[in-house]
Amino acid sequence: MRLATLKEGGPDGSLILVDRTLSRAVSTATLVPTMRAALDDWENLESGLRDLAAGLEDSGIAQDAPLDFIELTAPLPRAAQFLDASGYLNHIELARRALGESLPETLETDPLMYQGASEPLGGPRDPILAADESWGIDFEAESAVITGPVEMGASREKAANSIRLIMLINDVSARRLVPAELQKGFGFIHGKPPTACSAVAVTPDELGDAWDGARLHGRIRSELNGVLIGDPDCGVEMQFDYPELIVHAAKTRPLGAGTILGSGTVSNSDRARGSSCLLERRMIEKIDKLDRRSELMRFSDTIKIDMTDAKGQSIFGSIEQRLEKM
Amino acid sequence: MRLATLKEGGPDGSLILVDRTLSRAVSTATLVPTMRAALDDWENLESGLRDLAAGLEDSGIAQDAPLDFIELTAPLPRAAQFLDASGYLNHIELARRALGESLPETLETDPLMYQGASEPLGGPRDPILAADESWGIDFEAESAVITGPVEMGASREKAANSIRLIMLINDVSARRLVPAELQKGFGFIHGKPPTACSAVAVTPDELGDAWDGARLHGRIRSELNGVLIGDPDCGVEMQFDYPELIVHAAKTRPLGAGTILGSGTVSNSDRARGSSCLLERRMIEKIDKLDRRSELMRFSDTIKIDMTDAKGQSIFGSIEQRLEKM
Repeated sequence: MRLATLKEGGPDGSLILVDRTLSRAVSTATLVPTMRAALDDWENLESGLRDLAAGLEDSGIAQDAPLDFIELTAPLPRAAQFLDASGYLNHIELARRALGESLPETLETDPLMYQGASEPLGGPRDPILAADESWGIDFEAESAVITGPVEMGASREKAANSIRLIMLINDVSARRLVPAELQKGFGFIHGKPPTACSAVAVTPDELGDAWDGARLHGRIRSELNGVLIGDPDCGVEMQFDYPELIVHAAKTRPLGAGTILGSGTVSNSDRARGSSCLLERRMIEKIDKLDRRSELMRFSDTIKIDMTDAKGQSIFGSIEQRLEKM
Repeated sequence: MRLATLKEGGPDGSLILVDRTLSRAVSTATLVPTMRAALDDWENLESGLRDLAAGLEDSGIAQDAPLDFIELTAPLPRAAQFLDASGYLNHIELARRALGESLPETLETDPLMYQGASEPLGGPRDPILAADESWGIDFEAESAVITGPVEMGASREKAANSIRLIMLINDVSARRLVPAELQKGFGFIHGKPPTACSAVAVTPDELGDAWDGARLHGRIRSELNGVLIGDPDCGVEMQFDYPELIVHAAKTRPLGAGTILGSGTVSNSDRARGSSCLLERRMIEKIDKLDRRSELMRFSDTIKIDMTDAKGQSIFGSIEQRLEKM
């Protein structure tokens, strides 16, 4: 099933179920009001939600209504935690070269991960807001999972079983605010404006071969102002799979229901696949000694991030965000 | 008024009002079930909560009951965001010397702050859990504020007006897991196990001279196994006050209702005040070339963090946590 959240009804929004075409939806209010509450009691609520979803597909529900993505916030607008990895070594190597920093010695054995802002998480059509273009706004196309509760020190098996939902995210970054923050040694705050999410979060069973229990497979396509920037396969060269990332995150703390783990910027070493962020594209241009150097995002630029199935149907509902002056 | 949260009733617990002696409490269920919900609608709920608190002080409420801190979780067990500053320069200087790292050039003008885990936040009697003593568990005594909503780019005035509640926290740290994380450049995850909170969070008006609208004043006393480690004044040498920290946090993102800002480990340059963590104490012992070198916490050690008023009454309800093997 596909779950989304309408902006109406308070800071946690109102949970809805969405059909396979992502065009019609039905409220879950008779069962549970919010995604947060659904994740808190998933075992008891899942079968009822699945029944409602099946009814929606059968067009047997009188209350269903057309869905406009502009009315959506993130599927889970206030997460328990948001932990974002950097799981694609090709991206790490390019990004560190861009920053003039060396690679961590433990790159291939110890996941890079940062504690991100658990709220607010934005909807698929929310603007990216910046006070100034000089912040150097960039997108980062990633996949992400939403978990149930995970105990501290959880095994890989328990971590794998905790995965409830999968979605796409745009890990918006303010590139020119990052170096000063990293120099201070405490990670990102200013450098990471609110992350935005795809329209729906999808249960693993809906994904077929695109979900192998540990990684999402398929190309995530990033277009800036309608121009393709990259479409790497998120199942290729993801150094640490989701169960590993969850185990890493839960080493010294439990994770509450509604914790989001991000994969990191999707990146394939095959140059034909392009990039999932502008920082990486700029670095490749520099390495290739091209005269052209892509700019970071300018006001009014729109970034679209999407993943489609074999029939061209969007799986998660595209993220389309315009950079606007706040 | 003094607000606390019972562990019963789900992941967000059940909100209660606590009397001045921190010995009796009354449920707020007739008004609002949880701290999270109270903060989401504070303007509408505050006066009703204050009426209930006044009734509790007058002993005019039949439903009030004795309070046992062991039944409490954090006043806000799942925060919107948890952002922890390092606001006391004396602590930063000693901590960086201990790590063999240089001081940030912008130390006095740009707050040091990290994005912490917004959940789980622990109660005042919750154990600290570690798989191994070799993690090097340490406490950090801090004050913290809980805010209402803060818009992105908020002014100092709006930031100051957003402060709803004040409490103490123990920013538990796994010292020996920190260097490897900082080397990776993405901040803390393993190095920061769950933070614990004082029994109650208190509205500013209850604090009298101890709250000046921007800083908490008074000595926060840390005792390890009953032995005083330090009692520095948290209103002295706090380089950035809370409104400044909130403005910093909200530069590139809004903060939702229920965001927690921590002050950083309280530290006074007056050596007679001791330390609010063991890392700092160990560094001072090293600088003073003492033979003695305090150990970090061992299993079964208990850390008590408290602040009392002129009459010796605990203001926030002490944090008392035992380190246990998970």
